[in-house]
Amino acid sequence: MTETSAQNFLDKTLGHLRGAWRGIAGGLSGDGELILGPALPDSDLDRLREQMRACLEGRGGEVSARARAASLGRAYIGLSAEGRARFLTVLASDFGVDHADVQAGAQAVVSAADEGSLLRAERQLRNALQPPRVRLLTQFNALPEGVKFLVDLRAELLPLALENSALKGLEADLKDLLIQWFDVGFLELRRIKWDSPASLLERLIAYEAVHAIESWDDLKNRLDSDRRCFAFFHPRMPDEPLIFVEVALVSGMTGNIHALLDEDAPVIDPESADTAIFYSISNAQKGLAGISFGNFLIKRVVDELSKEFKGLKTFATLSPIPGFRDWLDGRFAEGELKFLTAGERKALKSAGLAGGSKGGLKNALESGLWDETPDLAAALSGPLMRLGVRYIADEKRGDGRALDPVAHFHLTNGARVERLNWMADTSDKGMSQSAGMMVNYRYKLDEIDGNHEAYSGKGEVRVSSAIRNLAK
Amino acid sequence: MTETSAQNFLDKTLGHLRGAWRGIAGGLSGDGELILGPALPDSDLDRLREQMRACLEGRGGEVSARARAASLGRAYIGLSAEGRARFLTVLASDFGVDHADVQAGAQAVVSAADEGSLLRAERQLRNALQPPRVRLLTQFNALPEGVKFLVDLRAELLPLALENSALKGLEADLKDLLIQWFDVGFLELRRIKWDSPASLLERLIAYEAVHAIESWDDLKNRLDSDRRCFAFFHPRMPDEPLIFVEVALVSGMTGNIHALLDEDAPVIDPESADTAIFYSISNAQKGLAGISFGNFLIKRVVDELSKEFKGLKTFATLSPIPGFRDWLDGRFAEGELKFLTAGERKALKSAGLAGGSKGGLKNALESGLWDETPDLAAALSGPLMRLGVRYIADEKRGDGRALDPVAHFHLTNGARVERLNWMADTSDKGMSQSAGMMVNYRYKLDEIDGNHEAYSGKGEVRVSSAIRNLAK
Amino acid sequence: MTETSAQNFLDKTLGHLRGAWRGIAGGLSGDGELILGPALPDSDLDRLREQMRACLEGRGGEVSARARAASLGRAYIGLSAEGRARFLTVLASDFGVDHADVQAGAQAVVSAADEGSLLRAERQLRNALQPPRVRLLTQFNALPEGVKFLVDLRAELLPLALENSALKGLEADLKDLLIQWFDVGFLELRRIKWDSPASLLERLIAYEAVHAIESWDDLKNRLDSDRRCFAFFHPRMPDEPLIFVEVALVSGMTGNIHALLDEDAPVIDPESADTAIFYSISNAQKGLAGISFGNFLIKRVVDELSKEFKGLKTFATLSPIPGFRDWLDGRFAEGELKFLTAGERKALKSAGLAGGSKGGLKNALESGLWDETPDLAAALSGPLMRLGVRYIADEKRGDGRALDPVAHFHLTNGARVERLNWMADTSDKGMSQSAGMMVNYRYKLDEIDGNHEAYSGKGEVRVSSAIRNLAK
Amino acid sequence: MTETSAQNFLDKTLGHLRGAWRGIAGGLSGDGELILGPALPDSDLDRLREQMRACLEGRGGEVSARARAASLGRAYIGLSAEGRARFLTVLASDFGVDHADVQAGAQAVVSAADEGSLLRAERQLRNALQPPRVRLLTQFNALPEGVKFLVDLRAELLPLALENSALKGLEADLKDLLIQWFDVGFLELRRIKWDSPASLLERLIAYEAVHAIESWDDLKNRLDSDRRCFAFFHPRMPDEPLIFVEVALVSGMTGNIHALLDEDAPVIDPESADTAIFYSISNAQKGLAGISFGNFLIKRVVDELSKEFKGLKTFATLSPIPGFRDWLDGRFAEGELKFLTAGERKALKSAGLAGGSKGGLKNALESGLWDETPDLAAALSGPLMRLGVRYIADEKRGDGRALDPVAHFHLTNGARVERLNWMADTSDKGMSQSAGMMVNYRYKLDEIDGNHEAYSGKGEVRVSSAIRNLAK
Repeated sequence: MTETSAQNFLDKTLGHLRGAWRGIAGGLSGDGELILGPALPDSDLDRLREQMRACLEGRGGEVSARARAASLGRAYIGLSAEGRARFLTVLASDFGVDHADVQAGAQAVVSAADEGSLLRAERQLRNALQPPRVRLLTQFNALPEGVKFLVDLRAELLPLALENSALKGLEADLKDLLIQWFDVGFLELRRIKWDSPASLLERLIAYEAVHAIESWDDLKNRLDSDRRCFAFFHPRMPDEPLIFVEVALVSGMTGNIHALLDEDAPVIDPESADTAIFYSISNAQKGLAGISFGNFLIKRVVDELSKEFKGLKTFATLSPIPGFRDWLDGRFAEGELKFLTAGERKALKSAGLAGGSKGGLKNALESGLWDETPDLAAALSGPLMRLGVRYIADEKRGDGRALDPVAHFHLTNGARVERLNWMADTSDKGMSQSAGMMVNYRYKLDEIDGNHEAYSGKGEVRVSSAIRNLAK
Repeated sequence: MTETSAQNFLDKTLGHLRGAWRGIAGGLSGDGELILGPALPDSDLDRLREQMRACLEGRGGEVSARARAASLGRAYIGLSAEGRARFLTVLASDFGVDHADVQAGAQAVVSAADEGSLLRAERQLRNALQPPRVRLLTQFNALPEGVKFLVDLRAELLPLALENSALKGLEADLKDLLIQWFDVGFLELRRIKWDSPASLLERLIAYEAVHAIESWDDLKNRLDSDRRCFAFFHPRMPDEPLIFVEVALVSGMTGNIHALLDEDAPVIDPESADTAIFYSISNAQKGLAGISFGNFLIKRVVDELSKEFKGLKTFATLSPIPGFRDWLDGRFAEGELKFLTAGERKALKSAGLAGGSKGGLKNALESGLWDETPDLAAALSGPLMRLGVRYIADEKRGDGRALDPVAHFHLTNGARVERLNWMADTSDKGMSQSAGMMVNYRYKLDEIDGNHEAYSGKGEVRVSSAIRNLAK
Repeated sequence: MTETSAQNFLDKTLGHLRGAWRGIAGGLSGDGELILGPALPDSDLDRLREQMRACLEGRGGEVSARARAASLGRAYIGLSAEGRARFLTVLASDFGVDHADVQAGAQAVVSAADEGSLLRAERQLRNALQPPRVRLLTQFNALPEGVKFLVDLRAELLPLALENSALKGLEADLKDLLIQWFDVGFLELRRIKWDSPASLLERLIAYEAVHAIESWDDLKNRLDSDRRCFAFFHPRMPDEPLIFVEVALVSGMTGNIHALLDEDAPVIDPESADTAIFYSISNAQKGLAGISFGNFLIKRVVDELSKEFKGLKTFATLSPIPGFRDWLDGRFAEGELKFLTAGERKALKSAGLAGGSKGGLKNALESGLWDETPDLAAALSGPLMRLGVRYIADEKRGDGRALDPVAHFHLTNGARVERLNWMADTSDKGMSQSAGMMVNYRYKLDEIDGNHEAYSGKGEVRVSSAIRNLAK
Repeated sequence: MTETSAQNFLDKTLGHLRGAWRGIAGGLSGDGELILGPALPDSDLDRLREQMRACLEGRGGEVSARARAASLGRAYIGLSAEGRARFLTVLASDFGVDHADVQAGAQAVVSAADEGSLLRAERQLRNALQPPRVRLLTQFNALPEGVKFLVDLRAELLPLALENSALKGLEADLKDLLIQWFDVGFLELRRIKWDSPASLLERLIAYEAVHAIESWDDLKNRLDSDRRCFAFFHPRMPDEPLIFVEVALVSGMTGNIHALLDEDAPVIDPESADTAIFYSISNAQKGLAGISFGNFLIKRVVDELSKEFKGLKTFATLSPIPGFRDWLDGRFAEGELKFLTAGERKALKSAGLAGGSKGGLKNALESGLWDETPDLAAALSGPLMRLGVRYIADEKRGDGRALDPVAHFHLTNGARVERLNWMADTSDKGMSQSAGMMVNYRYKLDEIDGNHEAYSGKGEVRVSSAIRNLAK
C-alpha cells in the first residue's frame, strides 16, 4: 500500500468522522489541543507519550482525561498513513503490560501456599496482565462517534498487524474490547425500508458485498413489499449497520438470483408466500472482522418473519459457492479425467470439445462461451453439479472446516445443503467463481441444533436426499 | 437478613422483571424449560450444573446456548432467597478459573526464554485467568432486560459476598463486567420533565435518596420551569435511570433547602438566573454500587445548562454533611471543652445551659429543642459552624480521603468548599445528621482540574476565603 | 357569575396558555404590541376595532396579518372577564355579515332569470353570508396553541351567549368552524398508559367526569395490564385529550363499579378476558360542547380491542343513570302509590317503613340509610329496579329522545339495554343520582346498525330479555 | 386528453393509494362493498345515488355512514377515467343545493321584518346554500389517506371543470373545503435532510418544478451542510410535502444557478455565510392549485435560518423570468427597432448580425448560438438586460398584476427586485424562457410590509438602485 493509496483509504474510512469531531472542543476539551506533524516526526513523540500518560493517570480528574483522549483522537485523525502507523506503534509498544510485574505475579501464583493467597495472587496477576493501552482505548469511547472511531481504527490496524508483532498484540486487545461491547445482547435488530433515511440506504449500497446494488432503483426493488431487509445496529453507532440480510418472500424455493434482482418482476402478495429466501448477507464493518453476528441475525430474522407471516413454511438461502472454481482449477492441475464418466466425456466431445487428457471440461469452462451455448451447457451440467456437491459437502480444510467459506458459515449455523441450482447466477462474478451455480441452504427449525452439533462436533455435513442423489 | 425479609427484598427488586420474562419462551428458547425447586434442593443441583455447562459449551450453536441461558435466568427468578444463594454458590464455585491451568500458565511465564514465548505465555495465561462464569453471565445479556437482570443480581450478591469468599470472587467478576458495559461513553444523558412518562417519574420518587419526594406535587415542583433534572441512562436499560441530579436555577447562591422544596414559592424566569444549585444527586441502582458516574453527570449537566442559559455564572451544590453529628459524638467522648472559646462557653451559659465539663454543647444539641429556641441557636451557631468547617475540610480517613463522604465526592470532582449555611435543613434527618447545616460546594470551571489534583495528589482541600475565616 | 369568579374561571381555563404566548413575539409579530386596559375601557375600543380591521384587510401581507392576530390574541388573554366580554361583543357586533349586502344578494337570487345567473347569485350570496369575524377567528389558528385558544374561547363564550344574541351568532360561527376542524377524520386515537407523560395523565385526573380519580395510585390501577384507556387527540392540540374512555378487560359482564375501582383487586391476564367493560367516558374540552366524538371513539376502541384480544366476545358499558332520582322525585310529586304492587308495599312496611299515601318508597330513599340496611334494601330492590327499567327504556322527552342523557347517548350509538345492576355504585353520587344502580349497555356488532335505526327512526329502545322481564 | 392517457394520469395520481385502501375493509366497512362497472354504465347509476344518499342520511349511524363513504371512495378508485367523470357528474348534479329551498330562504331574507327574523332567515339561508355534496366529500376524510384522496380528486376534477359548469361548482366546493383544512395554521414546517426517508426524497425529485433534480447525487448536493430544504406538511398527509423550498447558504448574493447546482463545488462552512439564496420553490400537489402557502413558507424559513445562523444578513431568491421570451416575441411582432439604441444596433452589426428592420436582436436570439459566442453575447447583454428590467418591473396585466408570474409572487410577498444576472442559467429551459437571465428578489425584513402595500395597493414595484440604473 503506497502512502497515497493508504491516505485515500484512511480518508475514505475516517473522513466522515471529521465533522463529528468539530463539536467536541466545546463539549469536553478543557486543554489546549494536541498538534502533531502529519507524519508524526520523532520530535513529536515525547509530547504524544506524555499526553497518553496524562490520560491514563487521570490528571485533573476523569472528565479532563476523557477530554484529553478526545484530543488524542483528533490528533490521530490528522495524521498521514505513516504517522498513524507510528502513533499505533507508540501505543502498542510503550503501553503494553509490564512484563516484570507479570513475571512477579506469575511467581506469586506458582508459589502460593494456600487457597486464599492463590486467589489474591490470581487477581493481582490478572490486573498485571491488563495492558494500560486497553484503558486508553476505552477512553475514546466517551467521544461522539467514539465507538465508530475504534472500529475504524481496527480496520486500519488489521493489515498493519500482519507484519508487526507489537501491533498484533494491540489489535488483539482492541478485538477483545470490541467483543465485549458488541456482544449480541447489545445489538438492535431493525428493519430497513424504503422509508428509512437515505443516508442509511446509501450505506447499504456501499456495503452490499454479495450482489452489488446497481442503483437506487435496484435498491428500491430489494425493499419492496414482498422483500424484507434487516440489520443489526449498536446503540452507540445508530446510523451504521453492522451486518444486514436481504430476504425475498416467494412461493417455492427460488433457485435463480436474476429472478430476484429483476426490477420488472411482478410484486407478489407477501401474505401468500410460503418460502423466505435469504439471498444476500453482508458484513458492513471491516473493523469488526472476526466478530460474528450472522448466526444471530439469521435466527432473529426467522423469528420476525415467522411472527409476521403465518404462511411461511421454508427458510432457505440462495448462496454463491465462491471457492468452487479456484478449487476446481487446483484439481485440473492433477488431471481432469477422473472427474468425468465415460458418458460425460462422450457428451462433451459431441458438443464440440476435443477432450484430450487436459482438455474437455477445463477448456469448456475457460471458453467463456458455454453459458451461451445450450448444447455445451447441457453437457457440462452433469459433471459440474456433481463436482459442486462434492466441493460443498466433502471438501474440508486441514482443521475439518468445510473448504467453502459460505458453506462453513451456514453449516455452522445449523443449516443443511438443500439444493444445487444450475445456471443460477450467470453474472461475470457468478460464472468466474461459482460456474454459475448457487446453493440453497435450508434452515429447518427442528433440525438446526442437531445439524450444528453434527457439523461442529464430527465435521458431518447434512444434506437433502436430492443432494445425496446428485453426489452419486 | 431473615429469609422472609430477603424474599421480600428479592421480590421487590426483581418482581417487575417477571412480566418481561414471559415473552422470552417464544423468542429464544428452543428447549424445554429448566424447572427447579424453590429452595434449590440437592437433588436439583446436577441438572443445574449440566445446564450451565451446556450454555458454556454452546451446544446446538450459540443461539441455543443463549436460549438456555434465558431458561437459567428464569429458573433463578423462580427461586427463594435460599435457593438463589445456592444457585450463586454453584456458579461461583464450579465455574471459576481452573487453578491448575493458571499455575501451569504462570510457570510458563516465569520460565519464558524469549520475548516471543513470553508474549504467547502471557496471552495464554490471561485466558486461563478468565473464569467461565463470566462468559455465562455475559450470555444473560441477550435476554430482554438481561442487563437489568445482572444489575439486580449484583444487588443481591453484594450482601451475600460479604461472608463468602467464593461469592466474593463472583461479585468481583460481575463488577468488572458491569464496569465494561457501563462505561460512561455508553451512557445517555436525558432531561427528565413533567412530560416524561409517569412510570419513569414514579421511579424517581422511589430512588430519590437525599431529600425524599413526598408526593407527585412535590415532584412536579422539582420539574418546574425554573428547575432541571437530568439522568444518565444505559441503552439496554432505557427506562431505568442510573443516577440523577436535581438542579434549581436561582439568583444568588441558595443556602436553604426548604426554600427550594417549597411548592408555593414563586417560579422565577430561568433566563434571569445567575446560579445553578445542584441540590440532590442520587444513585438509582444498588447493583451498580462502586461504579461511579456522578463526576461525569455533574460535568455534563454544567455543559448543558451553560449552553441553554447564557446568564449562569455560578454552579454550586447545596449538600448535606451526613457524617457530622456522628463525628461530633465521637469527639464528645473525648471531652467537648476544647472545642469552645471562653466567649462561646459564656454565651451558652447565658442561653441557659449549664456548661459543665461534659455539658454545654452536647446537651444543647441533644435537647432537640435548640432549633426552635432562637437564643440557644444563636449561641450554638459560632461553635457548630467552626466545627463544621473543621470536619469538612480537615478531618481525614486513614487513606487521606475526607472523612465526610459527600465532601470526598465533590472534592474529588474538583469542587471547592464555598460556604457553610446555618439552619439550612431543619428536617429531622438534617438536624440529626448535619446539625441543620448544609454546604455549598462550588464548581469553578477554570479551577476544577487544579482542585482535583490538589485533593487527589496531596489531600489538599480548597476552600473559599469565607470558609477560611470561619475556620479561624 | 361574579367578576371574581369569572376571572378565576378564565384564569384556570386559559392560564396555562400564557407560557405559550411568550414565544410568539419573536416568531410572528413584526408590529408593536396591542396594549389594552384590563376591563377594555371605551377609550381602547377604537384601537381594538382598527387592529381587527387591519387583520382582515391583510395589511402588509398575510404573514403580518397573522402576526397582528397573535397580538390580538395576547391582548385578549390579558383582559379581565369584563374586558373579555366587551372584546367579544365588539367582534360579534362590528364584524358580522353586512345585512344590506345579504339582502341585495337575496334579491338577486329571487329574481335570477336563468340557471347561470342563479348559480352566480347563489355563490355571491354565500360569500355575503360569511361574516368577517369568521376569517378573524381563523387567523388565530396560526398561533402556537391557536386551536386550543379558540376552543377555550368558546368555553368562555358559551355562558355569555345565553343572554346576548350578538354573542350567540358569534358562538354559532365558532362552533361551525370547530366542527370543520374537529371532523373525526382528523382525530388520532391514542392509547394512554402508565408510560404516558405525567403532564397528560394529570389532565385525565382533572377531566374525568364520571368516577373521579382520587389519586395517582387510583389512576395507575386504571392503566394496569388488564385495563385500557384510549383518547382522541387533534393534531394541533397534541397534548390535550378531547374525549377518553376507560375499559376493563374481565371475565363475564361486570355489574359493580367498586370491583373495577378497587386498587387491591387482583390483576387478571387480559388474554383470558371475554368481556370489555367501558366504565367511564368523559368529554375533556368544554369548548367542544355539542360536537360529538363518543360514537366514533367507542367504535374505534372496539376495533382496537378486537384486534388485540381475540378472546373478547362481549363489549358493554357499565353506566350510571344520572337522571333517575330527579325523575323519580318528579313522580313522587304525583303520588308514589301507583308505582308499587301490593306485595311491595307490604314488604316495605315490614321493613319498618310506614307507607302512607306519600311515605314508603320516598321516605326509604331519603332516609339515606337504606343501602346499609339489608332488609330495607331488599324490599326496595324490586320496585326500584322496575322503575329504573321504565325510566331508561320508556321515558322520553318531547322530541322523542330518551329522557336519560346517558341512555340517549348509547342508544343513538346502536347499543341495547342489557342489564340493570342493583347496588352497583354506592358512592354518594351513585346513590343520590342513580339510587345505586348501574346499567350495562351492550354493543353487539351485528345489531348496532339496526338498533340505531330503530331508535333514531322510530324511538324504539332495544332491550335484552332480562330487561324485558324486569319491566313486567 | 384521450381515454388512455387520462387513465394513465389517474393511475399515476391515485395508484399509490390502492395499497392504503386494502386495510379499510376490516377497519370501517360493515356493509357489502359497492361494486361498479369500470365505465360506470347507466345501469349502475341508481345504486351509486342510493349509496350516496345513505351516506348523507347517516343510516345505521355516523360510523356506518363513514364506512359507506369509504366504500364509495374505493369504488371511485376502481373506475376508468370515463367512469370517474360520470361519478363526479352524479355527485355534482344530484347533490348540489336545492334551488327552491334557496329561493324560499332568499325571499325570507328579503322580506324579514325585524332584526331577529333577519338573523334567523340568514342562518337558514346559509344552511340552504350548503350543498349536500360538501358533507359527502367531508366524509371521505375519515379514511386512511382520505385527505390525500380529496386532494388528488381535485387534481382530476380541475381539467374536467373547465368544460362543465356542474363540475365547476363541485370543484369550487372542494376548493373551499380544502382551504379550510389547509389553513396555514395547521401546517407543519419540517426540514428535509439527507437523513430523511428515501421515500420522501424520491417525491422531491418528482415534484421539483424549477430546476429538475437529475439524480440522487444531485439531490444529495442540494441537502449538503451548506444547504437547507424546508417543506410544509399537513398532519393528515404526513408523507406528502405540500410545497418546498431549497436554500443555499453563501457569501455574497449568488447570481448564477450553475454554481449552486454544481455537485463538485466546495462545501462552505454555513456559519460563515452572510446570505441565504432561495433558489427553488415548488408546489407539490396539483390538487391544491390556487391555495397559496409560498408566502408563509418563505417567511417561516427566513425565521428558522435567522435563528440558526446569526451571520445571515441578506435573504434573496435566484429566480427565473419564465415569461420573458414569450413577451419579447410579442414585442418583436411590433418591430424590434425601438428597443435598441444606435450604439447597440451598431454593436450587433459588428458582431456579425445584419440588423435589418426586423433582424438583429430577434435573429441573434433565435440563432441559438449566441450564448457560445462571446462577442455576440456581449453585444446582446445591454439591450436584453434593459428589456428584462422593463418586463419585470413595468409590464402589467390588465388587473395591475406584474405580467411575470414569478415576479408577481415575490412582489406580493413584499420582496423587491434587487439584481438582474446575465448568463445566469444557460440550460435549454433557461435560454428559451428567460434568455439565460435570472433575478434576485430580495426580502429585507423591515421593508416587506411597505413593499407589499405599495405593490398590492398601488401596483408600485420596488427596485434597487442598480435595477433603476439598468432601466435607464
